[in-house]
Amino acid sequence: MKNIIIASTSTLHGSDYLEYLLPELKIHFKHCTTVLFIPYARPSGISHEEYTAKAASAFAKINIAIKGIHEYDDAASAVESAEGIFTGGGNTFVLVSQLYKNNIMIALAETVKKGTPYLGTSAGSVICGLSMQTTNDMPIVYPPSFKTLGLIPFDINAHFLDADLQSKHMGETRDTRIKEFHAYNNIPVLGLREGSWLKVDGDKIIVKGELSAKLFIQNQMPEELQTGTDISYVK
Amino acid sequence: MKNIIIASTSTLHGSDYLEYLLPELKIHFKHCTTVLFIPYARPSGISHEEYTAKAASAFAKINIAIKGIHEYDDAASAVESAEGIFTGGGNTFVLVSQLYKNNIMIALAETVKKGTPYLGTSAGSVICGLSMQTTNDMPIVYPPSFKTLGLIPFDINAHFLDADLQSKHMGETRDTRIKEFHAYNNIPVLGLREGSWLKVDGDKIIVKGELSAKLFIQNQMPEELQTGTDISYVK
Repeated sequence: MKNIIIASTSTLHGSDYLEYLLPELKIHFKHCTTVLFIPYARPSGISHEEYTAKAASAFAKINIAIKGIHEYDDAASAVESAEGIFTGGGNTFVLVSQLYKNNIMIALAETVKKGTPYLGTSAGSVICGLSMQTTNDMPIVYPPSFKTLGLIPFDINAHFLDADLQSKHMGETRDTRIKEFHAYNNIPVLGLREGSWLKVDGDKIIVKGELSAKLFIQNQMPEELQTGTDISYVK
Repeated sequence: MKNIIIASTSTLHGSDYLEYLLPELKIHFKHCTTVLFIPYARPSGISHEEYTAKAASAFAKINIAIKGIHEYDDAASAVESAEGIFTGGGNTFVLVSQLYKNNIMIALAETVKKGTPYLGTSAGSVICGLSMQTTNDMPIVYPPSFKTLGLIPFDINAHFLDADLQSKHMGETRDTRIKEFHAYNNIPVLGLREGSWLKVDGDKIIVKGELSAKLFIQNQMPEELQTGTDISYVK
């Protein structure tokens, strides 16, 4: 039975890394003494070691140890034998490339589908969708595919941002980008604002946090889904 | 001898499509009665026909006809025999996928290197670099490669945007994204603000427009390059 937290961001403005999520994580990982951390997305290009130390320092506050996947010789068996798994944010292209390179895309999907508790933040949440094609990140490396874990039957846009109607900048708004995605793809997209997360509990997918989430379906007007909504009908 | 305009954007806030560039384009395309338009990037998913009509309406103001590349059976020979070429903005992943699919990435590079006047805006400018890896666009389709025309020896970040120091949004700034690019690549990146363009005249590459451009070189502090600067030393 799936047991997943898919968070838009790891960090809220003015607050520590993972701080807003810790009460939830304490419950989510209650049966874990150690959580396996996947640091592949390397935000700002920091090393696997530095990134793992950062995750460890947050999880120490809820008395859970963190071990980085790069510390294991066999990444797939590290995933399969983990008590819990956390994939941090950073660059989605780098993350997906590394998941394929280390041959764990399938092992990770199967392990989480079997019920190992999983937490994703930002890029680590984007990969829970069918594809990484609604990431906001720069394509700084070329992954062998854009297909991802498929733990949920739609795609995630993390750090979802409403259009700034005062802006004079002519770059595309997030809504326009997702509309362009739907000119070529029919996968639903959920825009998760910072501070929002999804809780996947078996077949149920619930919007959590204080804000609503914005659902984009091909050829339909976008829709705001209030926190608490069960969105398991979206596919 | 190369003769290229690489513009950050097609449109300035509160102004018509290509309006700010028309005086420059009148000179740039002075020997052309017809310019070949490449509408592949399809902003907001509009059709090739609609997009070509939009370009034609702007170019009509300087008495130049526009013909869309999709109107030709043989895209490569359309490129090779064009008097001038304009690639419009939109989604860089879609544009690059279509250039490969229609087998014109090489023909386009060779034609422009031989001296056919070229204009790129936004995505049409990003492809002038060595790779499309500093695009801001969403990866809505999967291109066979991120390699692009290589008309200049660096990469372009179009619609370059300075960090908003007041923002509480935790998504990466443009500077952070380019820094992440340089964790994996050593290609210099030029951030072109809206209203800026590069004029490539043979071996010379000059920053034009009212604003400075921001140069990012791996392991160095970014540098502001004033308008009028010859940046042909960057490689």
